Amino acid sequence: MMKILFIGDVVGSPGRDMVDEYLPKLKQKYQPTVTVINGENAASGKGITEKIYRRFLEKGAQAVTLGNHAWDKKEIFDFIDDAQYLVRPANFPEGTPGKGLTFVKTPKTEVAVINLQGRTFLSPNDDPFRKVDELIEEAKKRTSIIFLDFHAEATSEKQAMGWYVDGRVSVNVGTHTHIQTADERILPGGTAYISDVGMTGPYDGILGMDREAVLKRFLTNLPVRFEVPKKGRSQLSGFLVDVDERTGKAKKVNRIQINDDHPFFE
Amino acid sequence: MMKILFIGDVVGSPGRDMVDEYLPKLKQKYQPTVTVINGENAASGKGITEKIYRRFLEKGAQAVTLGNHAWDKKEIFDFIDDAQYLVRPANFPEGTPGKGLTFVKTPKTEVAVINLQGRTFLSPNDDPFRKVDELIEEAKKRTSIIFLDFHAEATSEKQAMGWYVDGRVSVNVGTHTHIQTADERILPGGTAYISDVGMTGPYDGILGMDREAVLKRFLTNLPVRFEVPKKGRSQLSGFLVDVDERTGKAKKVNRIQINDDHPFFE
Amino acid sequence: MMKILFIGDVVGSPGRDMVDEYLPKLKQKYQPTVTVINGENAASGKGITEKIYRRFLEKGAQAVTLGNHAWDKKEIFDFIDDAQYLVRPANFPEGTPGKGLTFVKTPKTEVAVINLQGRTFLSPNDDPFRKVDELIEEAKKRTSIIFLDFHAEATSEKQAMGWYVDGRVSVNVGTHTHIQTADERILPGGTAYISDVGMTGPYDGILGMDREAVLKRFLTNLPVRFEVPKKGRSQLSGFLVDVDERTGKAKKVNRIQINDDHPFFE
Amino acid sequence: MMKILFIGDVVGSPGRDMVDEYLPKLKQKYQPTVTVINGENAASGKGITEKIYRRFLEKGAQAVTLGNHAWDKKEIFDFIDDAQYLVRPANFPEGTPGKGLTFVKTPKTEVAVINLQGRTFLSPNDDPFRKVDELIEEAKKRTSIIFLDFHAEATSEKQAMGWYVDGRVSVNVGTHTHIQTADERILPGGTAYISDVGMTGPYDGILGMDREAVLKRFLTNLPVRFEVPKKGRSQLSGFLVDVDERTGKAKKVNRIQINDDHPFFE
Ligand SMILES: [Fe+2]
Ligand SMILES: [Fe+2]
Ligand SMILES: [Fe+2]
Ligand SMILES: [Fe+2]
Ligand SMILES: [Fe+2]
Ligand SMILES: [Fe+2]
Ligand SMILES: [Fe+2]
Ligand SMILES: [Fe+2]
Repeated sequence: MMKILFIGDVVGSPGRDMVDEYLPKLKQKYQPTVTVINGENAASGKGITEKIYRRFLEKGAQAVTLGNHAWDKKEIFDFIDDAQYLVRPANFPEGTPGKGLTFVKTPKTEVAVINLQGRTFLSPNDDPFRKVDELIEEAKKRTSIIFLDFHAEATSEKQAMGWYVDGRVSVNVGTHTHIQTADERILPGGTAYISDVGMTGPYDGILGMDREAVLKRFLTNLPVRFEVPKKGRSQLSGFLVDVDERTGKAKKVNRIQINDDHPFFE
Repeated sequence: MMKILFIGDVVGSPGRDMVDEYLPKLKQKYQPTVTVINGENAASGKGITEKIYRRFLEKGAQAVTLGNHAWDKKEIFDFIDDAQYLVRPANFPEGTPGKGLTFVKTPKTEVAVINLQGRTFLSPNDDPFRKVDELIEEAKKRTSIIFLDFHAEATSEKQAMGWYVDGRVSVNVGTHTHIQTADERILPGGTAYISDVGMTGPYDGILGMDREAVLKRFLTNLPVRFEVPKKGRSQLSGFLVDVDERTGKAKKVNRIQINDDHPFFE
Repeated sequence: MMKILFIGDVVGSPGRDMVDEYLPKLKQKYQPTVTVINGENAASGKGITEKIYRRFLEKGAQAVTLGNHAWDKKEIFDFIDDAQYLVRPANFPEGTPGKGLTFVKTPKTEVAVINLQGRTFLSPNDDPFRKVDELIEEAKKRTSIIFLDFHAEATSEKQAMGWYVDGRVSVNVGTHTHIQTADERILPGGTAYISDVGMTGPYDGILGMDREAVLKRFLTNLPVRFEVPKKGRSQLSGFLVDVDERTGKAKKVNRIQINDDHPFFE
Repeated sequence: MMKILFIGDVVGSPGRDMVDEYLPKLKQKYQPTVTVINGENAASGKGITEKIYRRFLEKGAQAVTLGNHAWDKKEIFDFIDDAQYLVRPANFPEGTPGKGLTFVKTPKTEVAVINLQGRTFLSPNDDPFRKVDELIEEAKKRTSIIFLDFHAEATSEKQAMGWYVDGRVSVNVGTHTHIQTADERILPGGTAYISDVGMTGPYDGILGMDREAVLKRFLTNLPVRFEVPKKGRSQLSGFLVDVDERTGKAKKVNRIQINDDHPFFE
């Protein structure tokens, strides 16, 4: 049995600190074969730097996914093309830097890691449904274990993707809303699914950002600077899937939440 | 201790059947003081009829909330003004039929039930934040137990509302996305919060609708008729909160899921 | 010199009546080589029927374009694949019925007629910019005269398209907003451009629909039935371009408005 | 007869230079009683500074309106409350700095100047229709001459506003799309109306911004810095209305365009 661990949108230094502290413990406890982290908010809440990407790999991740905040830190353009295990949504327009599919080696087989982005309430990118068909075909040439991070806002589009890829990928996690959903399940075709894994970072903010600023925005529509609070309690959100490596079918799913209301037990 | 039970967006006849079957069992098991149901999708997935509203009351609900689908069945305009325990989003424009606040009697005190709708990715209604201030003030004149169903799409707006009303309402549930979130908690001020309770209806559709139709829409943008599947497995999504009736503070929260992966235990 | 006449979004029977009455007069006055009509609202404000399509051809149009209302009348699916001179937005998803490019014969050369749809504030279709590159390449194999109806909402996307195709198409009209713009010009590369030609139908409605209904919608967000008013004054909106048929370059542009404030002179 | 001159969204230094050069000539030629300028993009395309506001008044404007870019330059918060003739959309949330209605003195009567913002495809502000009712009532206490700049994206909302205020305001111009519309008219109740006056600034950009940057955005969704081009040709867009000062009814409307294709004649 292969175990795939995923950690949802890491937000700023509170999120990175949670990864530093708990990823070793999670690896100790669950012994995942492969670990994937969504890092679109890892650098001060917006984007990612090369240093952070490398740090995630050092800390034990084998691949890092992104989303609509992929380009927020300018230096991404300097390193994305050389960052073998960093994927951005594959349905960004042709010619965009980076790639949307990578392969991670494991003792027995490779794991394909795909990142896609939804279009409902988000930018008009290429069709993620047709793109996932292409990528699955490409990935299947090398492995039967496919992991998909579908970064999307609308629950309809996310559930649609889940049913669309059911039986064709091993794991389909959703990201972007920063709130963990409680709908984890194994779909009839054998795909482990969750609409959103939620985020890793401040526990008492709004989606990980300073809540006074976000509230001011809703109350006034005035320009406000959204910042990741430096102080306060933190949380980690994750998802763990057991996959039968001969068939690529998911066998067991586990939501992970670490916060003051749900402390970690070794 | 007072117990408030909420059942999330009931979708079509599969959803109503789940209410018929499990509401008595839930009441037996948990002995809620007050039960509230979101009924915006109760009539074939869109809107509500008088017959369904009355049936919910007969089956044991004391109030019914709505949302963006409030007006989908034309007959709503014939009965909403006489339906004492039916609330539609209070921040719909002035002059709109119906009301957004009602009071439910219980042996010891009243419970105020408020319905509001978000504006992010939804219609431009009145400001739900300023409106909730008004309604809380009005409700506080009669009771310290306030239940709020905030029907909204964006997780940012939902979390912002939670923090905004923390300490001023007993329970703030979110609805509309039809997917249950796993972020239930009691905020520091004593408000029980969950971003979305999820929906009650088909378990293998997309948000409760026939999944082939929804997928066809995403793949083609062609017009499709969304229907509630008549056959197949069903689910119920709920939320149960223990409230200290002297202070109005929440003391305990319980997400409820009833489906084939999470069977009900009496 | 070749003359291309275009008539903007024909709305319901008032719009069709204006075509019946004035298209012969416009043809008499201007002697256009080719006439194109946008017919997306021709059938009671939403969609088009085969009868109306054929009638447009009989009245003197050589091609009919569509837009986001293409599929509003169900019968479109019965005849679009056989309607040689009917084009729907070419960037609708692959596999969609119909086509987005057709060729109209004229005494000296063919005219390519392309229909595309914008994505800002509209459905997430394929990229219209990459699609127009493909279609221009295809069209250039047969003719140097290309007419493009870009059906879009946002002025930014429309102007972007104009500059993008400048020098590669003879005429780029915009449609969809139902309001004629006053920015007609010949861009430096020789493309005749106007952001929106405006609509043909009721003169005293809102975008051609009954104005009481539209106002009620803005004031209440209640469901209202938008209908094309049967009575009242009408208007026609058009655009006339002189094109050098050897080079495909536009030489002269003329906005056309026929209404009570701008009567037609023969 | 009173004449009201309006100049549409002035964009950056090319726009300000056009005002400097042509406002004196327009005043010489038309002798307007009152001149109003939309300045939401006057400072490098985003927002306005106190210096620019004062310069507009010195150059001959009596009032300046804003829109969704009102807050783009931070210094606005330092001077807006003291800027008597500067109005921002009146339907911004209660408590927002600034005001949405001001009064300009003329030899015979005052002119009320109102600014409002639409909600379709824009931020969820207060209802502009109910707000305009309030403001008209307030203005009518002092004058029968009311000028309204409705800053909005959707043509439906703009036309709806025009019909809604017809007979109650003297002039209703639209702004925001940066493209002049050709639908100027006097509505039956006596209100001069145009959906959009268009913008004042670069003639060969996209809505006044550097077109390579805007095109790159549409083609790639990559972050790009939108800047006002420093070089190149410019344009001015305006609207002139004759108003009967005893009745407040509009008597004549004139669109104004000054650019290389439409040179100014003294
Ligand atoms: Fe994120
Ligand atoms: Fe995101
Ligand atoms: Fe719902
Ligand atoms: Fe809803
Ligand atoms: Fe149209
Ligand atoms: Fe359209
Ligand atoms: Fe502007
Ligand atoms: Fe604007």
